[in-house]
Amino acid sequence: MKILEDKSLKTTPIDTLGEFALIDHLTKDIKLENSSTILGIGDDASVIDKGDKYSLLSTDLLIEGVHFNLAYSPLMHLGYKSVAVNVSDICAMNGCAKQITVGLAVSNRFTIEALEELYEGIKLACKHYGVDLVGGDTSSSTSGLMISITVLGEVEKDIITYRSGAKINDLVVCTGDLGAAYLGLQLLNRENEIFKDNPTIQPDLGGNDYILKRQLKPEASVKYIKILKELNIIPTSMIDISDGLSSEALHISKASSVGLTIHEDKIPIDHTVMNLSAEFKINPIVCALNGGEDYELLFTVNQQHYDKLKKDPDFTIIGFVNDQSQGNNFIATDGSSHQLTAQGWDPIKK
Amino acid sequence: MKILEDKSLKTTPIDTLGEFALIDHLTKDIKLENSSTILGIGDDASVIDKGDKYSLLSTDLLIEGVHFNLAYSPLMHLGYKSVAVNVSDICAMNGCAKQITVGLAVSNRFTIEALEELYEGIKLACKHYGVDLVGGDTSSSTSGLMISITVLGEVEKDIITYRSGAKINDLVVCTGDLGAAYLGLQLLNRENEIFKDNPTIQPDLGGNDYILKRQLKPEASVKYIKILKELNIIPTSMIDISDGLSSEALHISKASSVGLTIHEDKIPIDHTVMNLSAEFKINPIVCALNGGEDYELLFTVNQQHYDKLKKDPDFTIIGFVNDQSQGNNFIATDGSSHQLTAQGWDPIKK
Repeated sequence: MKILEDKSLKTTPIDTLGEFALIDHLTKDIKLENSSTILGIGDDASVIDKGDKYSLLSTDLLIEGVHFNLAYSPLMHLGYKSVAVNVSDICAMNGCAKQITVGLAVSNRFTIEALEELYEGIKLACKHYGVDLVGGDTSSSTSGLMISITVLGEVEKDIITYRSGAKINDLVVCTGDLGAAYLGLQLLNRENEIFKDNPTIQPDLGGNDYILKRQLKPEASVKYIKILKELNIIPTSMIDISDGLSSEALHISKASSVGLTIHEDKIPIDHTVMNLSAEFKINPIVCALNGGEDYELLFTVNQQHYDKLKKDPDFTIIGFVNDQSQGNNFIATDGSSHQLTAQGWDPIKK
Repeated sequence: MKILEDKSLKTTPIDTLGEFALIDHLTKDIKLENSSTILGIGDDASVIDKGDKYSLLSTDLLIEGVHFNLAYSPLMHLGYKSVAVNVSDICAMNGCAKQITVGLAVSNRFTIEALEELYEGIKLACKHYGVDLVGGDTSSSTSGLMISITVLGEVEKDIITYRSGAKINDLVVCTGDLGAAYLGLQLLNRENEIFKDNPTIQPDLGGNDYILKRQLKPEASVKYIKILKELNIIPTSMIDISDGLSSEALHISKASSVGLTIHEDKIPIDHTVMNLSAEFKINPIVCALNGGEDYELLFTVNQQHYDKLKKDPDFTIIGFVNDQSQGNNFIATDGSSHQLTAQGWDPIKK
């Protein structure tokens, strides 16, 4: 047993690869052995055959200093958000979250009252989404707070929606509105900097409740899944918008071997986002494309559902699916066409 | 929305409560809402009804500086162990692990090669236990390495084993042998201290392969679950020994509303543990009672199975179940009786 030895390993820094490329690299040679495993890594949740239905399993980490800043994330909201982002992954498979487990590593700077507040948020989200908190693990950590949540959900076999089913000429649709969560983060960062410089200055957050809530206490798209069911619509592909519209569109494109074309003037932006982004001198479309954390759904759907979707204010048709050879495209309001990339469309580079 | 405000919270340090009491405190008012949730928090895994069978769900965290020290935990072994300890939780329900997800938070001092090594161990364990790695999340962390693994397993409804089914006069049985993992940790700590003081001195680990392996690369008790099935034995209660025999016995006692009596001279100790513990001047029984991380199974079983268990070297009958009013007892080799406590039996305090 070789231990306590000097190692002369090759040393390639982790950030040489992006997050997705790193996961691909580490898991590329995994073979699935159990016949019940329908889908492993590569979608919003893994899919496991449980007879009548599929089980859906997904894990998300929230790390202090990476995913949240406790200077402006109230612990109760953080607890709520950590459940919501996991439920969102189950929504993205057209499923329903049922159980979660919570892994919590906390340094000794946290008090019992702080953890109570965090758990209040977790329990509130569980109640809101009808999810049972069934287990977990609590540990000390050498620094900071780490939350690891795993969600188990289920979906009827005939309505499960993967990233991989988009077909040419399908409509590209998103729910709700985009860009607010990113703008909320900018607002919190700005006020936090001012507060750090001069703690007597009260933060100027008034009138931005919607934008702040989108960042601090996002909701999973459970209601849209219900509406789709009521409208008798099964999307051909679906993903939740956690990393920005561009990145998610490219995931569907890659998984489905198609291209997506998205129209700038169709992207739904809330009027409060319009106003605040002007103040920040940020293009709100850039917030939507590259910002992330909106936890809306992006899906593709057969054109037969056009009328039903057009009538429903919950959904916005933002583009269409084209042949893979035509690539992923962003049509700006001035009619110019641009390649859609993971870094998104930047009007400054236009 | 109140944020960026000074808070005057009560500040009760986390370590005021122990780990189990803290979890109890945070989760005591949780109500289970889904009819499919058979059991939430309080056993080795939660139990979810999936028609023909029960699904089992469990999460474990492994945190650098708390659960492992990379100075002497080879990353491949660490990966293996992180899967094994989760599979062990499923074994403790008399079930079979099927799928896992891996959450990984890593600071930038880790290289891609280091993560490859960690994943090699994870994949090796998956192969060994017939488990599919189906998903996960990878994130940067501000310090150290955190591994969060969630395992999904299944068990036939008629053989599921909880902590809560022990009956008076049942036999108390454990698998394998105990105390080695704790002693392995002492050995590694000692050699690491010597190595830190003088890196030119080669560590003296020779001849202790078994003990080191028990600490660094433990196995889940999958084989014992199979043997129990072959012997047609369904334990009345079961738990895996992650925190020491004493602590686990008390968990069964509490969940089953009974008392357990354990005999010192019956506790199975490997001869290498006997020898090394003499060198360390530690009582090997203390390693077994309080050490933990052996990942053997502790179970209770009806006396009708006495002959089958007695004949099988995989199992050791170490005591019996008594009435709750008689408490949990440890009968020392000299015949003296002691109360079994979570801190365990310490011969120095005798």
